[in-house]
Amino acid sequence: MLHIFPIRVYYEDTDSGGVVYYANYLKFAERARSEWLRAAGIEQHKLFLAQKMAFVVRSCAIEYFRPAMLDDLLTIASDLHDISRAKIIMRQAVLRNDEKLAELEVKLVMINTDKGSAIRVPADIIAAMKDKNARIK
Amino acid sequence: MLHIFPIRVYYEDTDSGGVVYYANYLKFAERARSEWLRAAGIEQHKLFLAQKMAFVVRSCAIEYFRPAMLDDLLTIASDLHDISRAKIIMRQAVLRNDEKLAELEVKLVMINTDKGSAIRVPADIIAAMKDKNARIK
Amino acid sequence: MLHIFPIRVYYEDTDSGGVVYYANYLKFAERARSEWLRAAGIEQHKLFLAQKMAFVVRSCAIEYFRPAMLDDLLTIASDLHDISRAKIIMRQAVLRNDEKLAELEVKLVMINTDKGSAIRVPADIIAAMKDKNARIK
Amino acid sequence: MLHIFPIRVYYEDTDSGGVVYYANYLKFAERARSEWLRAAGIEQHKLFLAQKMAFVVRSCAIEYFRPAMLDDLLTIASDLHDISRAKIIMRQAVLRNDEKLAELEVKLVMINTDKGSAIRVPADIIAAMKDKNARIK
Repeated sequence: MLHIFPIRVYYEDTDSGGVVYYANYLKFAERARSEWLRAAGIEQHKLFLAQKMAFVVRSCAIEYFRPAMLDDLLTIASDLHDISRAKIIMRQAVLRNDEKLAELEVKLVMINTDKGSAIRVPADIIAAMKDKNARIK
Repeated sequence: MLHIFPIRVYYEDTDSGGVVYYANYLKFAERARSEWLRAAGIEQHKLFLAQKMAFVVRSCAIEYFRPAMLDDLLTIASDLHDISRAKIIMRQAVLRNDEKLAELEVKLVMINTDKGSAIRVPADIIAAMKDKNARIK
Repeated sequence: MLHIFPIRVYYEDTDSGGVVYYANYLKFAERARSEWLRAAGIEQHKLFLAQKMAFVVRSCAIEYFRPAMLDDLLTIASDLHDISRAKIIMRQAVLRNDEKLAELEVKLVMINTDKGSAIRVPADIIAAMKDKNARIK
Repeated sequence: MLHIFPIRVYYEDTDSGGVVYYANYLKFAERARSEWLRAAGIEQHKLFLAQKMAFVVRSCAIEYFRPAMLDDLLTIASDLHDISRAKIIMRQAVLRNDEKLAELEVKLVMINTDKGSAIRVPADIIAAMKDKNARIK
């Protein structure tokens, strides 16, 4: 159910408040989603080059509970919450050991990259993601 | 009511999908909030150095309607939606001319930077922000 | 001779050392080069879309003298040091009032973005840049 | 002699030219230096908190040969070229399989983070780095 991806915090991720800058949690989450897709056999660069398709974020809601800091080893836990021809909902958490530092829900759609317009998620991508999700469970 | 701040899109803001990377809208919004505060007479670096206080984002929800692109001249419109001793709610929009590209709501609290714990927003900061907000209207 | 471009330092630019992260000076320099080009009538996004051409950095050398900090108002001074059909050399400095914080030299070439291969800098671009440079002087 | 660190390219690293943004190679190089130090037993966050010391980049020169792209799996090869009480010189390369994409030389010094002024590199840090370097060879 939960895909797990480790992320180390480097200087680039932090700000002068001494903690990870708030926008960078979205970078961490996107890295984890990319690895989730890769584990399901979906390479986004190939998808873009060969099929002119890309995943695009439609909305994102994030709550911050505790700050991550330089040198922290974090874990991003990702859950495929919902998937249909119209959209994909991922729920993700940023963890440091047993502490939950942040939690986010991301809604993705697929677009045709030439036109920039939303398209239905192809059946083979849905199948690959559902299959991957079942294997994680 | 609305504080207006212009932002130009550079290569650093974009990704290989040809559009502004989704996390970077949060950077744009934070720049605009910093300028909002500066216009209210609040310099965050001085606040940090002199009073060990900082604004921290507790939650953020963003919706993306249309992509921004390289060289676009954007406008960030920021509205102080709610302010109390416990929290500040800002509503912000990313615009390109008359088009709304994204919309976000950000909840901020103040912390003591030595302890990392939430503190009540000081009365003079509330007053300065309310006064600034009244003058924008 | 010197093109001047102001940059405000925001949280996103700093790191937990309390100063601007070293890679971000290259972002500042690139913003200033983009504005230099825009002032010469060269819009990079149009160049990319209409002519499949882009400027690409071949090398960059930067020296850091003093750190920039949150809320600093910096100036990027850019000088077109050399230009030919083969390459463009820009010399840039990051200043805070009279202090020089960093200095860099950047070598750019033009590429065809479909092939990724270097091309000769078009004569009209050289002319526009030389003309702009003369007008700055 | 060479410390090897793998880096995957994500959307955040790329720009609308379809390649990794030029400043982001400096982020990759810094991640690899941080891992080099960690492998030598040096945790930068602890150094900062406990001893008020930090490594700071004094200069950096980078050459770009070929672009890295989305989804690429890169290797950062790092070599401790020179070390003394006054400075540390690292030479690093960004590789994709056998191809060298970029090459950089970075000069670091140590500072006291309270004063911001350069200090001599402590003997135990030099010893740890030389020992680590010998073990890599």
